[in-house]
Amino acid sequence: MSVIDDLAAEFAKLPGIGRKTALRLTYHLLKQSPEQSRQLAGALEALVARVRRCSVCNNLTEQDPCALCADPRRDHTVLCVVEDASDIGAIERAGEFRGLYHVLGGRLSPLDGVGPEDLAVQSLVDRVSKGAGAGGSEGAIREVILATNPSMEGEATALYVQRQLAGHVPTVSRIARGIPVGGDLEYADGVTIAQAISARREM
Amino acid sequence: MSVIDDLAAEFAKLPGIGRKTALRLTYHLLKQSPEQSRQLAGALEALVARVRRCSVCNNLTEQDPCALCADPRRDHTVLCVVEDASDIGAIERAGEFRGLYHVLGGRLSPLDGVGPEDLAVQSLVDRVSKGAGAGGSEGAIREVILATNPSMEGEATALYVQRQLAGHVPTVSRIARGIPVGGDLEYADGVTIAQAISARREM
Repeated sequence: MSVIDDLAAEFAKLPGIGRKTALRLTYHLLKQSPEQSRQLAGALEALVARVRRCSVCNNLTEQDPCALCADPRRDHTVLCVVEDASDIGAIERAGEFRGLYHVLGGRLSPLDGVGPEDLAVQSLVDRVSKGAGAGGSEGAIREVILATNPSMEGEATALYVQRQLAGHVPTVSRIARGIPVGGDLEYADGVTIAQAISARREM
Repeated sequence: MSVIDDLAAEFAKLPGIGRKTALRLTYHLLKQSPEQSRQLAGALEALVARVRRCSVCNNLTEQDPCALCADPRRDHTVLCVVEDASDIGAIERAGEFRGLYHVLGGRLSPLDGVGPEDLAVQSLVDRVSKGAGAGGSEGAIREVILATNPSMEGEATALYVQRQLAGHVPTVSRIARGIPVGGDLEYADGVTIAQAISARREM
């Protein structure tokens, strides 16, 4: 194996990158200045060396507690529970939520061997029981929003987490499912349309 | 900028990788063992440190002359001229050609500022004039196959190279253009169909 094949093989391990794309990326880097390859290599090594889990919310971070948990301007009485740290970025970009997060680190999926003990559910219950935020000095949590994906596993996970939280927090809510904004009824699947109708609101 | 954003920004510099895909790749690596990120970083650094140009054929290689030029079982009297080193892999996988290569390092493209002096044409003429292979010990080259892409620039490049080679080699040929194997006349463009018809062969 040459170093060209080595690098292509490493690229091909990434999701959505096949053998041909991996080779194309490798040849692209060979055409660029060596600096670009070094920067990519350096960013990879910095990632491995510096990213860890926030001890409060389980988010991926370089500082502990993470920037979100440490931010006094955020609402420390509302938690949004997500499957993965990458979901936080999507919700932050939407700009609607100003509370804190809790990252489960996956979803219940018996077929993949992921059970309740593999998710950060107990730490969520502990956190809710003793108050939110770093050190729990911010007082009681009044709402937990379950923002797991609206898939079969995500729904099962939300249901499981809701049961674990029963009695520990006044309100447990679930993000709304319906027709996406800008979407088209004609192209929506039946289950989504049924959800959109049953969750209709008076205008 | 966090190291997560840094790595995503580096990924997003690669062709065909947008901002969302770059983030997905980064989070994928965070879920994997650190070893995978380190292997990718190591492969990148090995690429920069060890890959250079073959002094005979201009191919990308770790040894000079490259493995192809140094292989005595290949036919050193036929040269296949390609635009980029990545084209060699495609031709080798096809398994039809057993001669040697010559990499031009691009194609004539006045709009991109690529002129004849930017391509390895003179080294091709020198190589053909004094015999093929490493050191030229294998005797005269009897055929040069022009395998630049059948695009406007590729055709112009082939024409230019053919003129430079005139008188130096008995045969200069061009790869066939036509309907791709497994392709469908219905979906082929008019120029390709015209080529396929004018280059028809008796059965």
